[in-house]
Amino acid sequence: MTTPFADRLIEGVRAKNTPLCVGLDPFPDKIPALFGNAVEDTSTVLKFGTAIIDIAHKHACVLKPQLGLFEQFGEMGYAVARMLCAYAKQEGMLVLLDAKRGDIGTTAEGYARATIGGPPGFGADAVTVNPYMGKDTLEPFITRAQAEGKGVAVLVRTSNPGAGDFQDLQVGGAPVWQRVAEMLAPECARLRGQSGWSGLMAVAGATYPEEARRLREAMPEALFLVPGYGAQGASAADAVAGFVQAGGPMREGGVVSSSRAVLYPQTAQAATNMADWRAAIGDAMAAAAAELRTACTS
Amino acid sequence: MTTPFADRLIEGVRAKNTPLCVGLDPFPDKIPALFGNAVEDTSTVLKFGTAIIDIAHKHACVLKPQLGLFEQFGEMGYAVARMLCAYAKQEGMLVLLDAKRGDIGTTAEGYARATIGGPPGFGADAVTVNPYMGKDTLEPFITRAQAEGKGVAVLVRTSNPGAGDFQDLQVGGAPVWQRVAEMLAPECARLRGQSGWSGLMAVAGATYPEEARRLREAMPEALFLVPGYGAQGASAADAVAGFVQAGGPMREGGVVSSSRAVLYPQTAQAATNMADWRAAIGDAMAAAAAELRTACTS
Repeated sequence: MTTPFADRLIEGVRAKNTPLCVGLDPFPDKIPALFGNAVEDTSTVLKFGTAIIDIAHKHACVLKPQLGLFEQFGEMGYAVARMLCAYAKQEGMLVLLDAKRGDIGTTAEGYARATIGGPPGFGADAVTVNPYMGKDTLEPFITRAQAEGKGVAVLVRTSNPGAGDFQDLQVGGAPVWQRVAEMLAPECARLRGQSGWSGLMAVAGATYPEEARRLREAMPEALFLVPGYGAQGASAADAVAGFVQAGGPMREGGVVSSSRAVLYPQTAQAATNMADWRAAIGDAMAAAAAELRTACTS
Repeated sequence: MTTPFADRLIEGVRAKNTPLCVGLDPFPDKIPALFGNAVEDTSTVLKFGTAIIDIAHKHACVLKPQLGLFEQFGEMGYAVARMLCAYAKQEGMLVLLDAKRGDIGTTAEGYARATIGGPPGFGADAVTVNPYMGKDTLEPFITRAQAEGKGVAVLVRTSNPGAGDFQDLQVGGAPVWQRVAEMLAPECARLRGQSGWSGLMAVAGATYPEEARRLREAMPEALFLVPGYGAQGASAADAVAGFVQAGGPMREGGVVSSSRAVLYPQTAQAATNMADWRAAIGDAMAAAAAELRTACTS
C-alpha cells in the first residue's frame, strides 16, 4: 500500500527538524561559471542541479524544481528537470514539481500524467496546480494523487505583489482566495494520511501572514506550501504564520521554500573553486533550516 | 517593424473566410494505427501532427497545439510539439500555443521565453495564460508580446462544466470573470494593431454565449479565443456569440477552436488507408469552417 504523500512529507520535516524546502530555480545568468556557461550549454544546468541536490538532501526533505525556468531551455531543459527529479528522489528527497498546471478534464489528465505520473512523466511526489478554471479541472490531479500516494498543491493565496488583484476581490464579505479555500477544504479528506495531515496542499505566500492564519482556519488539515521567504522579503516568523502546535517541539503546517537565498548567496557566487562553493551553499541552507526551525519552536 | 499579432490573425481569418482554429490534441488512444502506436512510439505523434497540418493549413489560419497532451510523452513529446509549431508556421499558419502558463515575475519571464520566444523556445505567435495570480504575473508575457508582435490569450470565462465554481463568484454585483475582464481591458491598448483589434486576447467558452456577449462589452477590442465548439457541445451560433459587425460580410471577434471533431471524426477513425483518412479529415475541417462561416454571416 502506498504511503500517503502527507505522511511522507511530515515524516521528512520531523526527521530534518525543519520545514525547509529547497526551490531549484535555474537562472542562466546566475549559475556560477564554475559549472560552465548555462546560456550556451544546457548540461551546465544539470551539473549545477546535481551539485545543489548533493548538498540540499542533508538540509531539507523536499526539492521544488521551478519548471518554467527549465522550460526556457526547450526540450533539453525539460529533460534536465526530469533527470534532476529522479536524482533528488535517489538522494532521499521528496520532489514537489512547481509547474502551476491547470486545464480542462482530458488535458488535465495529460498534465497529471506528465507531472506526478511515472516515466516518461516526471514521477514527482507532488505538483502545484492553478484553480482558476474550477474544481472539475483539479479532479484528474486529485484522482491520480489518491491512487498513487501523491500530493497536489493548489494556489490559494500567492506570494507576489499583485496577488490581491483577483484573490482579494470581495465575495459576500470574504475574499476570493478564502472562497477558493472553502471550496477545496472538503477535498482534503481524499488525500489525508495517518498523521491527520492532507496531501491536498494550499499555497500560502509567506508575504501575507495574516491571510495564512485565516487560511489555516479554513483548511485545517491542508499542508501548506509557503513561497516568498527569503528573496521575496518575508521573515521566517511570517513564513510559519499558518503553522500550529502538533504535539512535538516544533509547530507544523507544511513546508517553506527558499530558492535564491540558498542557491545564489553572495558567498557562493564569489567562490573561485568547488570546495568553497559547496561550503557556502551548505552554510546558506543550514542557516535557512535553522532560522525556520527556530521560528517553529517559538 | 513587426506586424502586431492581432493584425496577422484578423488577416488570416479574412483570407480563409472563417474563424476556425484547429486544436492539435494528441490523444494516444485516438491516433489511428495508420500512423503507428502512439503509446509506445512518440514519433507517431509527430507523423500524425504533420499530416494534420498538411490539411489544416488549407482550412484554418491558426493551429492551437494542446501542450499538456504533448507533455505526457515527456521531453520527446515536448520536442515533437516544438517541431510541429515550426512546421505549422512553415505552412503559413499562426500558432497559438495552449499552455495555460502563469507564475511570478521571474518565472513568468522563463515561461514567456519558452512559449513565444525564439529557439530554444517554441516561437509560438501567441500563448494562453492563467490570470489567477494577478496582473504582475501577466506582465512578462505582455511585455515580450509587445516587443515581438505576439499575442497573449488570458483565461477569462472558460468552457468547462465547472467554470463557474470560481469565475461566477459574485463581486459587488458582477462575477469574478467580469472583474478579471475589467482589469485586463486597459492592457488591450498595448497589443492593439492597425485593424483596431488587440492581441491581448480573452478566452471565452463557446458553452457560455451570454457571458461571451457581456465579455465583448467589457473588452471591445480583445480578440477572443473560443474553446468548446464541437466535442464540448456548443453550437456554431453560440461559439460566435461575442462576434460583432466589422464592415465586411462576416462578423468578427477572434477564432473558434475545434479539436476532436476535426482530428478524430468517425469517418477518419474508420479509414483503412491514408488517402481515405486525408479525405475524411479534409471534409471535417471544411465542414467546421463552413459552419462557422455561416454563423458569422447570419
